[in-house]
Order: sequence, then C-alpha cells, then structure tokens
Amino acid sequence: MDQPSRSAGTVRPGGRTARVRAAVLEATQDELVERGFHGLTMDQVAARAGVGKTTVYRRWGSTTGLVADLMNELANQSSDHADTGSVEEDLRANALAVLDAVNDGRLGATFQAVIAAATCDEQAAQALRAFYSRRIEEWAKVVDLAVRRGELPEGTDGAEVIRAISAPLYYRLVVTREPVTRVVAERSVTRTLAAARAGAFVV
Amino acid sequence: MDQPSRSAGTVRPGGRTARVRAAVLEATQDELVERGFHGLTMDQVAARAGVGKTTVYRRWGSTTGLVADLMNELANQSSDHADTGSVEEDLRANALAVLDAVNDGRLGATFQAVIAAATCDEQAAQALRAFYSRRIEEWAKVVDLAVRRGELPEGTDGAEVIRAISAPLYYRLVVTREPVTRVVAERSVTRTLAAARAGAFVV
Repeated sequence: MDQPSRSAGTVRPGGRTARVRAAVLEATQDELVERGFHGLTMDQVAARAGVGKTTVYRRWGSTTGLVADLMNELANQSSDHADTGSVEEDLRANALAVLDAVNDGRLGATFQAVIAAATCDEQAAQALRAFYSRRIEEWAKVVDLAVRRGELPEGTDGAEVIRAISAPLYYRLVVTREPVTRVVAERSVTRTLAAARAGAFVV
Repeated sequence: MDQPSRSAGTVRPGGRTARVRAAVLEATQDELVERGFHGLTMDQVAARAGVGKTTVYRRWGSTTGLVADLMNELANQSSDHADTGSVEEDLRANALAVLDAVNDGRLGATFQAVIAAATCDEQAAQALRAFYSRRIEEWAKVVDLAVRRGELPEGTDGAEVIRAISAPLYYRLVVTREPVTRVVAERSVTRTLAAARAGAFVV
C-alpha cells in the first residue's frame, strides 16, 4: 500500500487501539489453535487478551468477526511476492512460503481451524476467500513479470498459476491427509511451470 | 475385488445385517449433512436408522467408526476408472466425476463434513486418507494404460497425475472457497496433461 490505512484500529500504530487489537487477535489465534472454531468464544478471547468483554463485542461483534480480522492481519503480515528475475525461483519462493505456513504448528493449525469453520459458516468462508484472494493477487505479479521477460507465453493467467502452485499442497494437507513435504512443493513448481510453458495457462 | 468380501456385515448382502448397515450409514450421512461431524451422535444415528443403540455401539464403537465405515462404503460405490482408449478422455471422466461429487448437495456436504472433522480428529483423518488412497489407486490405472499406449512418457507417476487432476477442484472447494465449475475441471485436465506430456510427472 502507498499510504497507511486509515481504518479504525490502525491509525495509531503502537497506540492503545493497536495494542488492544494485537492482544485480541493473538488470543483469537491461541484459542483457534487449542479449541478450534467451535470452541471459540468472545468471553474467553476477552479474558485471554486481558481486554474488557464489551470492547471485544463492540469492535468485533462475533467470533466470525474475530476470525475475519485475524485472517486480514495474517494477510497483512504475509510476505510480498518475490522478484528474483527468474520465474522458476519466484514460484519456488511462493511454494516454499506455502509449505512453511502449512507446516508451521501455529499457523498451520490456524488455517485448518478456519478451513473447518468455513465448511459450515459463510462468514468464515468469506474470511478465507478474502485472505486467499489477496495472497493470489500479490503473487500473480511474478507471472506478469515473467511474461514481460518472455519466460512465459503472452496471456498466461497469473492468478491461475499461483492457485496451481498451492493446490497440491493444500490437497494433501486437508483432503487426502498426506504429508506435505519439500518434494511436494518442488514438484508443484516443476509441473506448474511445465504446463505454463506449454501455454496451458493462457486464457 | 475377485471375490465377495467376507468381513462382517457384507457376507449376506440383502440380509438383515446388510439392511441394518445400510440404514445406519444412510442415517450417519443424513446427520453429517445436517449437523456436521460435531453434531453427530450414536444415539441420534440409531434413532434415525430405527436400529437399537446397543447394535450401533457394538458394531461401530464410536462416531468416527461410523464415519470410517461410511467413507469405506462411498469408496465401494464410486465408479471404476474409465477406459476410453484416450488418456485425455479418461482424465476428463475422472475430473468430471470429482466435479459431480463435490457439487452434489448431499455428497459434497458429506465430504466437507469429514474434511472439517479430520482437521481435529485423527480417526476421521484416517478415514479420509483411506478413501482417497483407494480412489487414487483405482484411477491411476488410466495413466498406466496411457503409458502402455505410448501417450505418456515411461515412468509417469499415475497416482500423482490423479492427485493433480483433483487438487485444483478441492483447493477451490475448501480452501479459497471459489466456485468449482466445469471450466475448472476441464482446465485441470488440460494443464495436468500438458505437464505429464512434458515429462514433469516422471519420477
């Protein structure tokens, strides 16, 4: 972003509002990891954060409000796209970032809790959709750069390439429940790139 | 399988044991779809199936026992691999079968409930792993046939090709919460096949 966000809670970074938000989101994540979405309660988050219940209710409204803001914050904290000058290296950086995230005890459990919640809660689904939309848009830029350098065919759909990099990792993580290893990440890069070079991502 | 299973509950298809199992698995699926895994109880399944509680406890032990047997039955009922003589058509048949399953109200909700359960329950994860392992093994045969016909390079990993066909569909379904359309299925075939023809699935 070119200028600081002016939305409530972020106008005075380091101020009381920001500190309260940080404590509440930290507590939300702790509770999600330990109890899952169904175990998440406003009162417990408030107690764990050391913040008044009325503040939590007023600012976040509901547990899905907490989850949406947490996902928003995780998107803010996620790394910008790589720009190594090589599409293969950029896509590898993306795959390894996903690999690290899903295999990180705390972060991986957070994603899995929200993925589980989203199967039966539309607001949780919306939070997930917003998170991945931002991440895909950010990393799609590496494909646009590759097209400009002549590494990939004109018209290659960057968002689709980025989805294709992540898909095999998440498929194993939450669907087939198989290990998500470095080899899985590397193969996803090789295979996606082979298809992209063959023009299969031109739309 | 070459001969009928001799495991309990399937030795007399059409008999009382089989009828009880069918009713209990139907009730399990109904409850999963309506209440999710966390709302599943042995007593409610027994009541809905019109079967004594003691029978359900004795034969299935727990709600995860019910889910495991339901996934086993869904695997039994799933279609065998296609054999059209063309790897592209066979893989399309696979992608469209997955598309139909995830977009089927009842079946899609069942998978999502078990996927959600598996994020916090190891037995549910095991049931999911077993289901997809069987489906992947069954459909991997179309790749072996393609290699024999010379359509794909020697050494192409069939299981990996089949995972790659499904991954983008499930990624949208449960992770990014984006629509899973026929176009998504068709593109998955085109892209996976492009990578496979380029040798990216040779291991």
